[in-house]
Amino acid sequence: MGKRYSLGIDFGTLSARAVLLDLESGQTAGSASYVYPHGVMSCPPGGSAGGRRMELQDPADYTEALERVVREVLSGEDGGLVAAVGIDFTSCTPLPLDDDLTPLCSLPKWRSIPDAWPKLWRSFALPQGKKIAEAALRRGEPFLEQTCGKVSPEWLPVKLLEVKEESPELYRAAAYYMEAGDWLVSRLVGEPVRSANPASFKCFYRNGFPGEEFFEAVDPSWTGVVSGPLRGRIVPVGQKAGKLCREAADRLGLPEGIPVGGMITDAHAGVYASGAAFDGGMLSVLGTSACHMLQSAAGLPAPGAAACVKDGLVPGLWTYEATHLMGDGFERFVGCFCPESLKAEAAARGENIYAFLNEKAAGMMPGESGLTVLDWFGGNRCILGDSSLTGVIAGLTLRTEPAEIYHALLEAAAFSMKVNCDNYETNGLSIRRIVATGGLARKNAALMQIISDVMEREIAVCSADEGPALGSAVYASSLTGERTLKDAVRDYAAPAGRIFRPDPERAGTYRKLDARWLKLHDLLGREHPELIRR
Amino acid sequence: MGKRYSLGIDFGTLSARAVLLDLESGQTAGSASYVYPHGVMSCPPGGSAGGRRMELQDPADYTEALERVVREVLSGEDGGLVAAVGIDFTSCTPLPLDDDLTPLCSLPKWRSIPDAWPKLWRSFALPQGKKIAEAALRRGEPFLEQTCGKVSPEWLPVKLLEVKEESPELYRAAAYYMEAGDWLVSRLVGEPVRSANPASFKCFYRNGFPGEEFFEAVDPSWTGVVSGPLRGRIVPVGQKAGKLCREAADRLGLPEGIPVGGMITDAHAGVYASGAAFDGGMLSVLGTSACHMLQSAAGLPAPGAAACVKDGLVPGLWTYEATHLMGDGFERFVGCFCPESLKAEAAARGENIYAFLNEKAAGMMPGESGLTVLDWFGGNRCILGDSSLTGVIAGLTLRTEPAEIYHALLEAAAFSMKVNCDNYETNGLSIRRIVATGGLARKNAALMQIISDVMEREIAVCSADEGPALGSAVYASSLTGERTLKDAVRDYAAPAGRIFRPDPERAGTYRKLDARWLKLHDLLGREHPELIRR
Repeated sequence: MGKRYSLGIDFGTLSARAVLLDLESGQTAGSASYVYPHGVMSCPPGGSAGGRRMELQDPADYTEALERVVREVLSGEDGGLVAAVGIDFTSCTPLPLDDDLTPLCSLPKWRSIPDAWPKLWRSFALPQGKKIAEAALRRGEPFLEQTCGKVSPEWLPVKLLEVKEESPELYRAAAYYMEAGDWLVSRLVGEPVRSANPASFKCFYRNGFPGEEFFEAVDPSWTGVVSGPLRGRIVPVGQKAGKLCREAADRLGLPEGIPVGGMITDAHAGVYASGAAFDGGMLSVLGTSACHMLQSAAGLPAPGAAACVKDGLVPGLWTYEATHLMGDGFERFVGCFCPESLKAEAAARGENIYAFLNEKAAGMMPGESGLTVLDWFGGNRCILGDSSLTGVIAGLTLRTEPAEIYHALLEAAAFSMKVNCDNYETNGLSIRRIVATGGLARKNAALMQIISDVMEREIAVCSADEGPALGSAVYASSLTGERTLKDAVRDYAAPAGRIFRPDPERAGTYRKLDARWLKLHDLLGREHPELIRR
Repeated sequence: MGKRYSLGIDFGTLSARAVLLDLESGQTAGSASYVYPHGVMSCPPGGSAGGRRMELQDPADYTEALERVVREVLSGEDGGLVAAVGIDFTSCTPLPLDDDLTPLCSLPKWRSIPDAWPKLWRSFALPQGKKIAEAALRRGEPFLEQTCGKVSPEWLPVKLLEVKEESPELYRAAAYYMEAGDWLVSRLVGEPVRSANPASFKCFYRNGFPGEEFFEAVDPSWTGVVSGPLRGRIVPVGQKAGKLCREAADRLGLPEGIPVGGMITDAHAGVYASGAAFDGGMLSVLGTSACHMLQSAAGLPAPGAAACVKDGLVPGLWTYEATHLMGDGFERFVGCFCPESLKAEAAARGENIYAFLNEKAAGMMPGESGLTVLDWFGGNRCILGDSSLTGVIAGLTLRTEPAEIYHALLEAAAFSMKVNCDNYETNGLSIRRIVATGGLARKNAALMQIISDVMEREIAVCSADEGPALGSAVYASSLTGERTLKDAVRDYAAPAGRIFRPDPERAGTYRKLDARWLKLHDLLGREHPELIRR
């Protein structure tokens, strides 16, 4: 077989990236990226958010990005050699469409209505989230098993109810309410399709959506949801969404009829790129937040995890998710509480402040400062799952230095990761290998070493520069009928980059410190949460 | 009776002040101050501390200051009209003397030895403090009743043992080891005298020093302490130390033979100046630390207080002390964790950063930020009396602002004051009136209002500019035989300045917040101190 490519395209929060995977050599043959001109908007262009706090995007940015990165990554290559296309996207970032899959926000009639625009994953609809959670708990909806009993205020049905309540006329006009990634894939294959991946994790899908009676139980006037805005064929993970339609093929310079994968959530696509797509493989995405995605053949309940979805990412395996705050906490501290003198010292050495603080942190002994931090600055999203909890810094003295607090924040992040992984394991889910990706995994060696010492495990950093885009290409390569997803991941996943290994002495100290951290965690988080509730 | 004066001289940490009190009008007729040229030294001039951390002073600064401030305050007045002299001094700030009351550090032979110099109150001798505390507890020494079971590493016997252990030859050469204030008074009256005031609070005096066997129990080779370095007549509070000797009278331009008061600890002298010298009167000195000095006719045990001394300050009354960190915590936060942007904003308004933060704090509602602070940054010196505890900030979120932490620090200081005062009252000691003095009382109205709201009490700020010096003058005026100490305080104490009164609504909110604060206090401070131990 001659040269052939798989094309993966990753749509992130602020930009899109394409990666061209050479299926013969297994190497990346090219990449391209494009920053969305409209970025993140707090209200419709020229309009108003009506006092609501939301983060909107312009779907024209997505289509523009798609054409540009595909054309650019293929420049000098023969587009006819592309054998499959895969797309990953942030989730849940949905938008309302008309019958022709035209975004309502692109129509003059709806342009000024915030609810007509794609709402970014981190836009929350709190009151609607509460209503839906209450109804689900009251009815004991089976989907709660896979959401671990929770309903996030960012998920698709929640955002849909927000549209209904805030903009009823627009709601009635919407033929579909769809993940933006599903919308892009639907345009590529020429018919409305939804991927089981985001549907399972963020839309209550579990061999089907909940019955209409569930939505009516939330609000008696909320009828015809599944047969209405949630319409569209569901594409199981591991199967193609369809074939590239002529119009899309022409627009992108790709062969008509090649398989197109269903949308994969961007973080999940990284699992394919990292190789952690087997029983016991875990990908930890370490960025503003941390998300630990474990694949397991054992579909055991894991109370305290954030998700537990069968066939959601790898056919035949359960995917568990656990999450907690990470970089956002460091950033707030450095931005707001790190004195100018340290920043000046860093600047004088020509270092950025993080590099400078990381160097200091790397020189400190475990727990040297005596500080203990519960990093619940955005609530506890770990095993306690209580978003009303707040952060705690204990061990402060008149001599506590800012760099010591930074170090303790790194330690807290590692303890939080450990508590999540221990939770997996005490529930019978074994972790055989941890691969890390994300900005912190690549740039913060001090943090990575602390994590390795605390976890007493090897942590391999994924070497891929564009993990999700590569993952989409890997995923797409499994749709040509020539190889299984398992084979595709084995052959095309990026090799491990730097590997962090625990230092026995530091690990020993951290064992004691972790026990103390856990006591404070339980004392304030479980026994006396009222003392640290917002 | 014609015009007559009482002269009070206050020796602080960095300077001395004199106040001339007009006994006819009750007004201050003049004041003068002098900054010690040598300030605080970390080692003997031209010498070395030998790796020890200590804060030394030069006794020549004291004698120079005495002459200068007395001469200056009398300039233009007739020194012959001075009827009595009183001196207050920091404590415990002792020095070794030879038989002629000459400081050993002034002799060439001892000049280079750190232990020959006065050691400032805040110089600690930790190992010696531990030894003495252990012996006292083991033997159940009666003096522990008045020190509330504690031995501070800054007290006179502790510092004396440090001299013995670190500089045995010097120890043998010392005829006396004496509070610097006692030394000054001894020079004025021409014979070695010690005031019962500092001796009771900081030298285990209780109708006499402990027997020699106590010191021998600390260290069998520590013999002849009471008959040796602790020699000197004890002057009870309320009685004169002696008459001004000719030599001192000539040197200072004062009448020979006038009564001289025994040294009073500087903070205690403020009690006379503030009028809080009656049953139920409490003076709160609010500075780097807070000290709450309550006078009571009920000599009930008050576990958790820092001192409980009969006849130590007002004859016939017990004086209780309770203490906790205050301004040192604010200063550390503002110095180390307050961002440049806030300081720049303050500077742009021409305000210092504290005034700026206080203004912001005054505009916040009680507990608005959701933060709870245990301000044990220097250990808990309050009712828990555990110096190994550390500080805690709870309630942190990604939106917590530095000004909110500052506000929470002010609230924590108020809660700490309340827990001390509640401890007095639950032990049966009633507080009838609170007068506040010190830098924070005079300059930080935001703090004072929070204290008043939290305590649900009026807090009067003492109007005296030079509280301790005025207090020494008031005290001295009671030694002429014309009036009792009670009358002197009634006639000459400074009137109340600004009075802070609780706002009922804010007080109501603080009642709930205080309950929460107290729960965290007990949970971490009593039930789980191991989680926040240094």
